[in-house]
Amino acid sequence: MSYVGASAVAVNPMNAAEYHGINLIVVNRRMKVAELVLRVLICALGVLAATLMVTDTQVMVFFSIQKKAKFTDMKALVFLVIANGIAAFYSFLQLLRCVVSLAKGSVLFNKPLAWAIFSGDQVVAYLTVAAWAAALQSSVYAKLGQSELQWMKLCQFYGKFCNRGGEGLASAVMASLCTVIVSAISAFSLFRLYGGANAKTTTGW
Amino acid sequence: MSYVGASAVAVNPMNAAEYHGINLIVVNRRMKVAELVLRVLICALGVLAATLMVTDTQVMVFFSIQKKAKFTDMKALVFLVIANGIAAFYSFLQLLRCVVSLAKGSVLFNKPLAWAIFSGDQVVAYLTVAAWAAALQSSVYAKLGQSELQWMKLCQFYGKFCNRGGEGLASAVMASLCTVIVSAISAFSLFRLYGGANAKTTTGW
Repeated sequence: MSYVGASAVAVNPMNAAEYHGINLIVVNRRMKVAELVLRVLICALGVLAATLMVTDTQVMVFFSIQKKAKFTDMKALVFLVIANGIAAFYSFLQLLRCVVSLAKGSVLFNKPLAWAIFSGDQVVAYLTVAAWAAALQSSVYAKLGQSELQWMKLCQFYGKFCNRGGEGLASAVMASLCTVIVSAISAFSLFRLYGGANAKTTTGW
Repeated sequence: MSYVGASAVAVNPMNAAEYHGINLIVVNRRMKVAELVLRVLICALGVLAATLMVTDTQVMVFFSIQKKAKFTDMKALVFLVIANGIAAFYSFLQLLRCVVSLAKGSVLFNKPLAWAIFSGDQVVAYLTVAAWAAALQSSVYAKLGQSELQWMKLCQFYGKFCNRGGEGLASAVMASLCTVIVSAISAFSLFRLYGGANAKTTTGW
């Protein structure tokens, strides 16, 4: 078999769809459904996390002085709200693309588009992980304090504020896990386009 | 051309090596060199970051009371040291595999091994990003304070400690960027094994 012949397989859609005995249309459809569900979850959990944080307030009175705790008092929570807002908005846009793609039953062969989706998903995944890591660290200081640095525990005064913030943080962590899985799916969708040496040997490494 | 014929291309190493006009051996060698350089950088920068943090101390005297600042005073810095230690050790092990693979000139076709490398690289990448995000957030509190929470600025007292910590953090961020690129390379090495439908159409998406 010549190299020219092999090349002809690649550009024939029917052969491409059932290459190596794998029905790419079926595999692609399942991946698209999984991606769609995950993007819906990112949207919902991202909005939930941001809403819980933004609406989280508690007023306390210390010796007739009124103090109000809000999410803007802690830089990490502001970053968390922004990151989750970006993730939810980005996922909403990607969701529209997924729905159209699923309705059409088309397979992603467009490399520039696959690169754009992969890059966007990677940025959002690392952004959300960085955001909840920073917020979790701040929450640990707020809950336990850091006596060596004379940073006082805040949750002993603002219990309700901390509990609701914890719920927001949990939503953000779940949204972030979904972005990590989605970024792996988009990596698969992109890099399989560079395949072609699918040899089943287990000796090479 | 029949489907059986197409399948024969895949298991023929010679055709696999030059599938679609791409010399996989050359591409693979370049990727391996890039991966090797990045893993050396992760090792070096990870060790540098951890060393700078662990050896970072400063003694100050406040009204005849001696106070010593050290990295264990801040939970985020302890996490940063652990994460960079793990990243450096893991990269060292992967480095040995890279050197052997490069010397042999072999191509990664072993799917379970490719999955193991991909998974390990993903964990290390997200771990290091989370670690420096948490440490950066803590450093912002140390540098600027958070007056609403009555968390005092520390760098006005411990300037030398903060500067050296900043250098350690910068090293950790660079190491982390390398882990992110390496995880993309390992995603490429894994998912291209699932390719085979390398159609050059730009209409499907």
